[in-house]
Amino acid sequence: MPENTMEKHNIVTCTAPVNIAVIKYWGKRNEELILPINSSLSVTLHQDQLKTTTTVATSRSFQEDQIWLNGKEEDITHPRLQSCLREIRRLARKRRNDGDSPLDPSILSQKVHICSVNNFPTAAGLASSAAGFACLVYTLARVFGIEGELSGIARQGSGSACRSMYGGFVQWIMGQKDDGKDSLAQQVEPETHWPDLRILVLVASAEKKSVGSTSGMQTSVQTSCLLMHRAESVVPGRMEEMIEAVRGKNFAAFADLTMKDSNQFHATCLDTYPPIFYLNSVSQQVINLVHRFNRHYGETRLAYTFDAGPNAVIYTLQQHVPEFVQAVQHFFPPERNGGQFIQGLPVNQAALSEELKQAIALEPMPKGISYIISTKAGPGPRVVEDPTQHLIGSDGMPKKTV
Amino acid sequence: MPENTMEKHNIVTCTAPVNIAVIKYWGKRNEELILPINSSLSVTLHQDQLKTTTTVATSRSFQEDQIWLNGKEEDITHPRLQSCLREIRRLARKRRNDGDSPLDPSILSQKVHICSVNNFPTAAGLASSAAGFACLVYTLARVFGIEGELSGIARQGSGSACRSMYGGFVQWIMGQKDDGKDSLAQQVEPETHWPDLRILVLVASAEKKSVGSTSGMQTSVQTSCLLMHRAESVVPGRMEEMIEAVRGKNFAAFADLTMKDSNQFHATCLDTYPPIFYLNSVSQQVINLVHRFNRHYGETRLAYTFDAGPNAVIYTLQQHVPEFVQAVQHFFPPERNGGQFIQGLPVNQAALSEELKQAIALEPMPKGISYIISTKAGPGPRVVEDPTQHLIGSDGMPKKTV
Repeated sequence: MPENTMEKHNIVTCTAPVNIAVIKYWGKRNEELILPINSSLSVTLHQDQLKTTTTVATSRSFQEDQIWLNGKEEDITHPRLQSCLREIRRLARKRRNDGDSPLDPSILSQKVHICSVNNFPTAAGLASSAAGFACLVYTLARVFGIEGELSGIARQGSGSACRSMYGGFVQWIMGQKDDGKDSLAQQVEPETHWPDLRILVLVASAEKKSVGSTSGMQTSVQTSCLLMHRAESVVPGRMEEMIEAVRGKNFAAFADLTMKDSNQFHATCLDTYPPIFYLNSVSQQVINLVHRFNRHYGETRLAYTFDAGPNAVIYTLQQHVPEFVQAVQHFFPPERNGGQFIQGLPVNQAALSEELKQAIALEPMPKGISYIISTKAGPGPRVVEDPTQHLIGSDGMPKKTV
Repeated sequence: MPENTMEKHNIVTCTAPVNIAVIKYWGKRNEELILPINSSLSVTLHQDQLKTTTTVATSRSFQEDQIWLNGKEEDITHPRLQSCLREIRRLARKRRNDGDSPLDPSILSQKVHICSVNNFPTAAGLASSAAGFACLVYTLARVFGIEGELSGIARQGSGSACRSMYGGFVQWIMGQKDDGKDSLAQQVEPETHWPDLRILVLVASAEKKSVGSTSGMQTSVQTSCLLMHRAESVVPGRMEEMIEAVRGKNFAAFADLTMKDSNQFHATCLDTYPPIFYLNSVSQQVINLVHRFNRHYGETRLAYTFDAGPNAVIYTLQQHVPEFVQAVQHFFPPERNGGQFIQGLPVNQAALSEELKQAIALEPMPKGISYIISTKAGPGPRVVEDPTQHLIGSDGMPKKTV
């Protein structure tokens, strides 16, 4: 690509976070617009541990829109990618027509190259599509000079992506309108609100891929007799209680609701026909461990939650992390040594009392958990200012290191 | 004990069957009277394979009521045993007072000795309390000269015992009255109704005892948001559909409802807090096997159902038994050889096609299933006429062989 073309391409790189729901989203009322049957609430995880990085470049020399995910070119015609691209370009065109855009108008006729990577293995089974679509939409918006509400566009890429558009504690309000205009994410509290809250991702040993969440929730909506009752009669009250627990930093209330809602989501999966199992024997063991740990102390110090896979995400307070991690290492004797077993925020050493071991009294499951990622609540998407961090080179193609 | 006392004791021996629900009972509205929150429906299994045998003797020489279960004396003061004894004696007294009893009136002042055995190991995890209380009540009724409706008394021993009072296809109508007088079992169709229906009990390898059904359903009633919705809004329609499927011998409808209702029962267990897991990885594998088997043939040939434990009970038609058993032996390579692996009704050899194996495509779980009991629908409780079969000897005590 000649020098003069390179000068003309616009390039922006951003990062976006993963989020883990504590009131679960499961089931759409509109498949195309991705409108949910209930509101949901999540905690945005810190990008120091888990993030997606996306570079978007435009150039009049690009022949077509193209996308590379984790170094591999993917199909740009995917309907959900197209929804996000179309919405962003539509807004950019509207702003230009309204005359309030500082944008070089020629960009609207240019093709985009998109390059995106995660700093965590896909095998971790974390909902990378949420971070991925949030990052895509956030970056595209910067390239095309769009400001303001973007969660409604991210939602059309992947429902839960709308919640990754904000840091801290985020609700996705289901909305009522048929066109989905009121189905948006909203920050409940920022990431600084609850400084001693900690999040541990317990990565279960690799298993075969289970039913994907898109088709899983379709089947649930079609076949589960319990799902609509959950959506209509249970979740609204839980949303209110959860927001109150978050605002009041009431860990016990937050944790109990988190566990109950995770269980109920998996209950509706089991009520789906044929049934969907995301929890395996390791997940069941983690659930038992958490309840026995809490019972031993006579208070709720830990909460588990599981998405569409066997990995447990644990919410706890900073002071309980070391002992819990010791308990995990005791009841899931790891293959790796301690250093590699715990990743992310450092975890202090702690002793595990005989009383606690006996109170938990589970049969150890060697290698049941592959490793732990220790993290906390974090901010929403960010622009990366350092131009050396772009994932796309001056030739308009993904850099070799990607 | 002197000869003259022995002559005076009354002795009756009866047998009663196990039943396996296809619309599940889970949750009581009255703990003491054992009144359920929904109706349920079961198939009575044949006593040639699974039965309880109970001998009841009375004698003026007996000092106190006593009970021996599987050779071990148990506490006769157990409230549910006392409920059954009290109700039977109350009815006997009423009949005597009404003057319509041929009974020797002295029997009402005598103590009873009860001796009961199962012809299947407790480790099989089958709901032995249903057969046990059905047999106890049926035998006591014979001893005390009571005729007519007995399921309401059996219900007070163990809820599902009321369904073991009849053969074939049996519904337990939940009733509406506070005193439980209308909460009774009723035969829907006799055991001769559906001759080619077969039942296979897949006994999962021994696991630690999970949460018992009595305390489990209490916790579910107290904590599950989904259970009452199931009881009030889902089960009534399913009862009607199930009765229609049974009457019309519509296997596909019967099987789909059976699987859905088992799944929904376990979903409410998972929605219980803390959650209750009765299904383990072997159960999940059986569920997957059944759905893939059915999908391969494009029709519902098999149904699974699980009670409060990991053992699968499979309903199928006679012609599908050999191939299914082969599939079980392939995907759960047994420890025992074929002869011991399959117990009960003989199962013909069959070849397992490569197509079916590939369609199922599960990772084999060696020794996941301990053995299979092959049986069919059978009759209700029976009197054993042969006096050599009494479990209580002429000395009024359990025979040594028991």
